[in-house]
Amino acid sequence: MKHAVTFQLHKTDTRTKARRGTLFTPHGRIETPVFMPVGTQATVKAIKTDAVRHLGAEGAHILLANTYHLYLRPGHEIIREAGGLHAFMNWDGAILTDSGGFQVFSLGDLRKITEEGVAFRSHIDGSAHMFTPEKSIEVQQALGADIIMAFDECAPYPADRSYVEQSLQRTTRWLQRCKQHHRNEDRQSLFGIMQGGMYSDLRRQSAEQIVELDLPGYAIGGLSVGEPKPLMYEVLDACVDYLPAEKPRYLMGVGSPDCLFEGVERGIDLFDCVLPTRIARNGTAFTSRGRVSVKNAKYARDFGPLDPNCDCDTCRNYSLAYLRHLYKADEILSSMLLTEHNLYFLVHTMEQIRKSIEEDRFLEYKKTFLEGGGGCE
Amino acid sequence: MKHAVTFQLHKTDTRTKARRGTLFTPHGRIETPVFMPVGTQATVKAIKTDAVRHLGAEGAHILLANTYHLYLRPGHEIIREAGGLHAFMNWDGAILTDSGGFQVFSLGDLRKITEEGVAFRSHIDGSAHMFTPEKSIEVQQALGADIIMAFDECAPYPADRSYVEQSLQRTTRWLQRCKQHHRNEDRQSLFGIMQGGMYSDLRRQSAEQIVELDLPGYAIGGLSVGEPKPLMYEVLDACVDYLPAEKPRYLMGVGSPDCLFEGVERGIDLFDCVLPTRIARNGTAFTSRGRVSVKNAKYARDFGPLDPNCDCDTCRNYSLAYLRHLYKADEILSSMLLTEHNLYFLVHTMEQIRKSIEEDRFLEYKKTFLEGGGGCE
Repeated sequence: MKHAVTFQLHKTDTRTKARRGTLFTPHGRIETPVFMPVGTQATVKAIKTDAVRHLGAEGAHILLANTYHLYLRPGHEIIREAGGLHAFMNWDGAILTDSGGFQVFSLGDLRKITEEGVAFRSHIDGSAHMFTPEKSIEVQQALGADIIMAFDECAPYPADRSYVEQSLQRTTRWLQRCKQHHRNEDRQSLFGIMQGGMYSDLRRQSAEQIVELDLPGYAIGGLSVGEPKPLMYEVLDACVDYLPAEKPRYLMGVGSPDCLFEGVERGIDLFDCVLPTRIARNGTAFTSRGRVSVKNAKYARDFGPLDPNCDCDTCRNYSLAYLRHLYKADEILSSMLLTEHNLYFLVHTMEQIRKSIEEDRFLEYKKTFLEGGGGCE
Repeated sequence: MKHAVTFQLHKTDTRTKARRGTLFTPHGRIETPVFMPVGTQATVKAIKTDAVRHLGAEGAHILLANTYHLYLRPGHEIIREAGGLHAFMNWDGAILTDSGGFQVFSLGDLRKITEEGVAFRSHIDGSAHMFTPEKSIEVQQALGADIIMAFDECAPYPADRSYVEQSLQRTTRWLQRCKQHHRNEDRQSLFGIMQGGMYSDLRRQSAEQIVELDLPGYAIGGLSVGEPKPLMYEVLDACVDYLPAEKPRYLMGVGSPDCLFEGVERGIDLFDCVLPTRIARNGTAFTSRGRVSVKNAKYARDFGPLDPNCDCDTCRNYSLAYLRHLYKADEILSSMLLTEHNLYFLVHTMEQIRKSIEEDRFLEYKKTFLEGGGGCE
């Protein structure tokens, strides 16, 4: 059987687990490691797809969209009728959809978990719905992304060992149901998700169960859920070792600049995060000197760029003083210019990371970047 | 003395007062008649200047910005230090600033008029300020627009004849003070503003007084302030006849598609209006078939374009169903895509109007356009 998405590993760093690869999808090839901008509601917030396509030197080639949100609004059937998500949102690059699992678990009192699936109420109108592994796959097939994700439970932090163990085992049973229900493997590839909380042996148990299903890619879920970063890195270190080297590895929901370096160093290929677009709308930018809040009064007469080391359109053409004015005046252009910058910053940084791996100087690049202040924790 | 802005009249229609001309400014030439997008706070809301520059086939070449708003925030001195408005907002085309008169008069209880000027309180923080003709000119010189406007009073509608007469005479005295205070005529051109409400003889009186000052251009103020459109057209008919043919004529604050045709027919060269950008943010579009509200439930599964006769990026790449989804989901991209469409629609329509005048078929084009439903009243 031909898989929709395949992965080719070009090189592994000699001193770390960092690696250079290429992901081949029905909508083009993606050089890894890569950061995927998030388009929750079938739009990366405050930026047009043609601008996303031209971020950095090579452009962004894969986006993430959200099954829960699109199922509720506009409805996956409408997107199916539109010809799928690519056509609907005018994006001819690749798309990954999450399963909706993370969102329905985040609903708290509005959801109830059983072996069958999760009953929940819409955050929009309170209407009652049920997501099962089968339903999630059906919705994701209607959306038509290149990579679809298994329906899983992301255990909270902190959580009892016994809860985490039961939860990861249910996640495995749900993954088996997802795989069973998934039909068009030549057009969409199903990735499994490892869980297991902060317990290294449970991570191993989860990995062994999901790897057995021989899927085209694996994600690490349940990290960056409130735990301290050193703990996350420790767990991540172990996680990666339980996954097969020849398959792509996706660290879900992680994307601050420092975490990208730490993730790459530990062998991660794919990242996504709402942070760059969310903080942009809040007037905050990632820069090579650390986070900058354009609200700051000291920028009122700063006619220099947001980041003198950045070549994005925002940094080439607009001043900090102007960006501050736009934010204070509540102008949409503020969100637009900062979103473009933040995404460019991450896409560009990943390009530099890829190059540094190719040239055997990943650790040196990481050191320079973080010592310059670009980590933006 | 060399004027910053000059006007060349190429042709007047044989059957109407419609005319084709060119405005030469320190920031390029502008073919007239023209619609000027409004960038109140040093940004055309929800669109980048490079996109504004590429609207229609020929692009937009002149924007309007707002003295009152920029004086209060970020402050005209900051914009002066930035190198003027063009540099501050990254726009190398021409700019026209209004005088702030219209905005301070709109403040109602927050302002008090005397012969000296207008004392007012900021709508942002309630702080006390005073605009005089001299102050308005100073602020506009700091902003550095190519065309600056006289500080005038726009009389309300309806208004007593005696009030309108006193008001227009004060506007003339203020214009004399503006001209007196204006120094750098080789870099910025001062346009006078005709007032006189709905009284044809007062319009004549105002025109005679301001034309005597031999300014490089004249605006018609005090229309589209709540009066019925037939009355506006009737007054406008008279107004234009009192203005010299060799100077450009600017109809302030008017820009719905039907009014553009009626204004051009009566000899107007310049228009501006917040309508296209404002209604865009409210989910409404001008189209060749009339106004379309993307909110409408009937568009939920309409995978065709907003306007099948439009070549803008929005109409070429996105469906009504997608635009409706974005609006309902409260996505910034909704405002972005509809703003781009609405501005394109007006810029394109003005291009077609110019061509129709050149080819002696303005009235035919107007008839076709309005009968098709494009008037969008």
